Amino acid sequence: FDLDLAAVYVSDAQYNRNIYFDTTPQAVRLYQLYNHWVLKVLLYFFILVNLGLAVFEEPAVITTPIWATMGAELLCLLAFTIRLVHYAKVIPRDKFWKDPKNICIILTLIDMIIYGALKSANCHALRWSRVLRPLLLVNVTEGRQLRRAFRSIRNALPQIFYVFLLFMFSVLIFSLMALKLLGKRGLKTINGAPYFTNYLDIVFDLYVLVTTANSPDVMMPAYNASFIFAIFFILYILINTYIFMSVFLAVVYNNYKKYLKEEVRQLVRARRHKMARAFAVLQERQEGAEPVVIQERWNQLIRLVRPDISNSHRELLWSVCDDKNQGKVAFMQLADLLNIEVITLKSRPHPLQGLCPALYLSAPSRLLCRLVQHRAFVITYDLIILVNAVFIGLDEENQVIANSEWVFLSLYLLEILLKLYVFEPRGFFSKHNFWNWFDTIIVVSALVATVVNSAVKSAGVYSSRQILDIVFILRVLRLIRVVDSIQRFRAIINTLIRIGPAILTFGQLIIVVYYIFAMVGMELFKGKVKFYGDDSVDPAKAFCGNRLLEGTDFAKLNYCKNNFNNVVSSFILLVELTVVNQCSGFAAVTHVSARIFFVLFHIVVVIIIINIFVAFVLEAFFVEYSVDKSDLQTSLEKKIEELELSVAQWLEDNLVNAMETIDNDLSGGQSANGKPALMFKIASKSKKH
Amino acid sequence: FDLDLAAVYVSDAQYNRNIYFDTTPQAVRLYQLYNHWVLKVLLYFFILVNLGLAVFEEPAVITTPIWATMGAELLCLLAFTIRLVHYAKVIPRDKFWKDPKNICIILTLIDMIIYGALKSANCHALRWSRVLRPLLLVNVTEGRQLRRAFRSIRNALPQIFYVFLLFMFSVLIFSLMALKLLGKRGLKTINGAPYFTNYLDIVFDLYVLVTTANSPDVMMPAYNASFIFAIFFILYILINTYIFMSVFLAVVYNNYKKYLKEEVRQLVRARRHKMARAFAVLQERQEGAEPVVIQERWNQLIRLVRPDISNSHRELLWSVCDDKNQGKVAFMQLADLLNIEVITLKSRPHPLQGLCPALYLSAPSRLLCRLVQHRAFVITYDLIILVNAVFIGLDEENQVIANSEWVFLSLYLLEILLKLYVFEPRGFFSKHNFWNWFDTIIVVSALVATVVNSAVKSAGVYSSRQILDIVFILRVLRLIRVVDSIQRFRAIINTLIRIGPAILTFGQLIIVVYYIFAMVGMELFKGKVKFYGDDSVDPAKAFCGNRLLEGTDFAKLNYCKNNFNNVVSSFILLVELTVVNQCSGFAAVTHVSARIFFVLFHIVVVIIIINIFVAFVLEAFFVEYSVDKSDLQTSLEKKIEELELSVAQWLEDNLVNAMETIDNDLSGGQSANGKPALMFKIASKSKKH
Repeated sequence: FDLDLAAVYVSDAQYNRNIYFDTTPQAVRLYQLYNHWVLKVLLYFFILVNLGLAVFEEPAVITTPIWATMGAELLCLLAFTIRLVHYAKVIPRDKFWKDPKNICIILTLIDMIIYGALKSANCHALRWSRVLRPLLLVNVTEGRQLRRAFRSIRNALPQIFYVFLLFMFSVLIFSLMALKLLGKRGLKTINGAPYFTNYLDIVFDLYVLVTTANSPDVMMPAYNASFIFAIFFILYILINTYIFMSVFLAVVYNNYKKYLKEEVRQLVRARRHKMARAFAVLQERQEGAEPVVIQERWNQLIRLVRPDISNSHRELLWSVCDDKNQGKVAFMQLADLLNIEVITLKSRPHPLQGLCPALYLSAPSRLLCRLVQHRAFVITYDLIILVNAVFIGLDEENQVIANSEWVFLSLYLLEILLKLYVFEPRGFFSKHNFWNWFDTIIVVSALVATVVNSAVKSAGVYSSRQILDIVFILRVLRLIRVVDSIQRFRAIINTLIRIGPAILTFGQLIIVVYYIFAMVGMELFKGKVKFYGDDSVDPAKAFCGNRLLEGTDFAKLNYCKNNFNNVVSSFILLVELTVVNQCSGFAAVTHVSARIFFVLFHIVVVIIIINIFVAFVLEAFFVEYSVDKSDLQTSLEKKIEELELSVAQWLEDNLVNAMETIDNDLSGGQSANGKPALMFKIASKSKKH
Repeated sequence: FDLDLAAVYVSDAQYNRNIYFDTTPQAVRLYQLYNHWVLKVLLYFFILVNLGLAVFEEPAVITTPIWATMGAELLCLLAFTIRLVHYAKVIPRDKFWKDPKNICIILTLIDMIIYGALKSANCHALRWSRVLRPLLLVNVTEGRQLRRAFRSIRNALPQIFYVFLLFMFSVLIFSLMALKLLGKRGLKTINGAPYFTNYLDIVFDLYVLVTTANSPDVMMPAYNASFIFAIFFILYILINTYIFMSVFLAVVYNNYKKYLKEEVRQLVRARRHKMARAFAVLQERQEGAEPVVIQERWNQLIRLVRPDISNSHRELLWSVCDDKNQGKVAFMQLADLLNIEVITLKSRPHPLQGLCPALYLSAPSRLLCRLVQHRAFVITYDLIILVNAVFIGLDEENQVIANSEWVFLSLYLLEILLKLYVFEPRGFFSKHNFWNWFDTIIVVSALVATVVNSAVKSAGVYSSRQILDIVFILRVLRLIRVVDSIQRFRAIINTLIRIGPAILTFGQLIIVVYYIFAMVGMELFKGKVKFYGDDSVDPAKAFCGNRLLEGTDFAKLNYCKNNFNNVVSSFILLVELTVVNQCSGFAAVTHVSARIFFVLFHIVVVIIIINIFVAFVLEAFFVEYSVDKSDLQTSLEKKIEELELSVAQWLEDNLVNAMETIDNDLSGGQSANGKPALMFKIASKSKKH
């Protein structure tokens, strides 16, 4: 049991979890169950179902009876409640009741009951608790990243608020000036409406100008009258768009950094505390000497915490810990040590060599291997990709072009087969060889899709547009591979891939905010703007089914599909609003509420969330640029070198396809020892927090 | 002479100048003349004239004969040449010939000769050297900030280039995908043109989408066909607009920081070198002891370097230097010490007290002083400002409202007079009391403008719109004062004011870039788009005088004034392009060249210059947030405190109007001593680099 408890402590420290539990054997088992991956996947599944219900609920994309969506929601709530009860068993009782999850679930239940009652009485009912659903995504999951982002926003709010007040003050002052300067000149907008005569309209127009959505339009009537007024607008844009928006970024970024630092400090403290408790459980006191953890227990522990680590990797870790002969101090670093990603390179002989050594080691076979490993091979394929790009750009109706696709496909397939012949397959498809995976998946799916497409075509039933689309996308995606050949690009791409998971966190954040705004927007604006298909002859098509839009730019530019009539179009509209706040159309329909809605959306998404995102990307790149290895990484590397297990620099550059090469060159020395030739390499350049 | 030489070294070190000269007395005098402010102002004047010539040259805002502009330009070139010859006398000869100024001037002369010859022969001539003019602004002046910005851009270019390549690769790939997915569906744009069928058009459209200029429009036809295509565009915007633009910012910012650090390091080294040379000139060797600078010479030196420093301030500086008894080490810090801005607060009695002490010190007068200094006085005036804001917003045609203006004006005037009565005038109008200056200037000019306006009105000649405009602007500007009353706002505003000068540097940078693009743009596109006044009945008005624009959005939205027909409208158009790259109209007129021009402009201005600007604002705010006092500042402050000359904290908060307060409260203790009560305060929170 001791070992179980210690393992829980260590893995908690490693993954920076923050749950405290009592330490009876039963509680430890419950806690381990709570953190089991099956339960977590199930939880995410129910959250997805719960969020996805919006597609089926009124206003629905796919209309479904109320009992079905209500039933599904009840099921989800039940799942969350079970998870919550489980959670209550694991953490101290007093902490449980402070948890906001309870409130979310109870409020949702109340809302469902009221809604059901009102609906059965045929009254107008409102599902207001749908706004709470994304909050479950934040609260029910142990999404630390997401919660950290939320906390960092909460901490930045007071400072953002004061800058925002100042910014609004500036907008108000400029609006007053615009009213006084331009209101009495009898200018007309392009639609013939009076220009800049109503103060609130001016404030709104100038606020929208900050988002650059109505950039030259709002200024044109004044500019046409005299170029002096252009200076007014240029000053406005300089101060409010450029300076204030930069100040917002500065405030958000500064808070983000400050908060991150504080959080990391707390995590390090918590981790140290947990590792100390784990050591207390495992230590063996030798007379006179310091308490230590013996190797056998240490091995058992690692096996429990990280069953995926190989024996030799474990031995390497032990030798690093043991080397210092410091007992507790070395043990305390274990969590950090486990966090350093070490790539174990096992140089196995190629399976073909085992099957048919005479053939595989023959002169032509060796020549082939050398050819494939040569730089010219890469360059040849880069050229083929470029030619392919030109062919894709040409018209595929042409028979020659259509047939050339088969040639290219077989060339790519040949490349993969050749590489598989030369390099050891398990090395080729190891976790860290992103581009090998990418290549193979794209080429194989392209092959499958092309074959299916030809089969459908030759069967003469119909030419499926969907399959053809997939074929096209796969063909174009293949071209991306060329990026990997250029060293300079690889560095940037690698940084982007590394920050990928964190961008997903921001994706969740954005989805939470979008979901809330979509729900509110659908309640407020559903049905206000209608979309008529291309073949519709309804006269209402000219004004999107709303007489108020008659003659507006919104209708003229055919923006009718930008509406809140279902959850999908709401999301797409919100994305458009994030990019450019083109809300003039909606504002025309439902005057005040739409304006408030759009300004609020701009404040929350563009000023806060997008700035957090930018701050995050900036920080990630700065960390990449100023990469320092931690002490621990250095000592681990030193150990690897001491044991002569390191990958030589010249090999490292070639790592992607290098497995078999290592085997060939070192086989004389190492294989004679009878041991498998193992090599280690530290994967990540920067420590993850 | 020694003193002169030392003074040159010290002031060079203080202002971070980088010119080396030989050290004969004559050279020193020449060098001092070279740095004289009159010559510098003259130089700036000629640069302004030279740049301003664009207003008078073809295509001109104000048409002027060629001989006039050519003559003015020759005069400017002459001035630059004289400056250059002066410069050549000051710096070593070999450095002189490497200077790019020579080339600019010679090229301009050649261009003028060719142009004159061609014009007199009635051939088509091109003034290509006008592009070189703004480079003189960079090169002729000793604008270190501007040159630093340029160097920092140059250093960042290689990295930006690789990210840009990757970005363009991504745009090309997406365009290819768009062509394949959307080109064959027979979709139509809003104007009935085929949608996404030409690859180069797609690339251009998608590039413009990155600038968000054509945000929902370019996507609507595809989105109307199916919402699946919206995902394609959302993905595109996420990757190219959000991620890549953030990466650009990261790269620019990172380089900017790196370069700044390196530059500061070099400057510190150069400064140390110069101070050592100054010390070598001034030192007096005493037997056995270290060489020192005696106080008398030190005083003479400071008087030469900074004649504006008061005697007592100089004594304070000497006591800081002397305190350490370290001779050379202390002297080496002199330049830094002079850079710390110390506000000398002289508490003089109010002039009225001198004139009529009985009245000024009487009970009612003292009561008045207390009232004005009370917090309630500030709040009362804030309320008056708010009421005034409402009155400004109302219609000024109303007689009551028009008369109320006089009431408000007299109230503001009364406030200033009261403050002048209570506070010592020289303290009230000291250099650091920004808001007092602001108030007084605004109120007095508003008074003058209003009086002039009424005079013109009552004379019944005509109601001059210009004067009324100025009156309105001044009225609204008065409202800004309210910001100063709120502590939180003051901090932000102060940072903004502090980074003001550096924003001006970026203003110069922008003007250099705009000027070059405006000159090229005018040559390429002048007369392509014509603006017709409001009252014009020319049928060409509907398509801006260019048949190619018939029926385009550009003509429909009445953008005709956005053209390159003279330098003023070119500049305004370029500002519009910076905000939102609305170039579709121009692209329609002159297909390829306009597109290349606009994409180039976007790369240079938005991707590079604006990002440098953002990086700069970010850095300035971070420095404000993490302000550390330098050692030297601390020791100066300690000295001020030791000598009991510091301003108490509670007074510091009130500093703006505090001068007389100090005098009242401390007069008992200090004035009895017979000495004038002097106080010091360190002005800037952060050291300037």
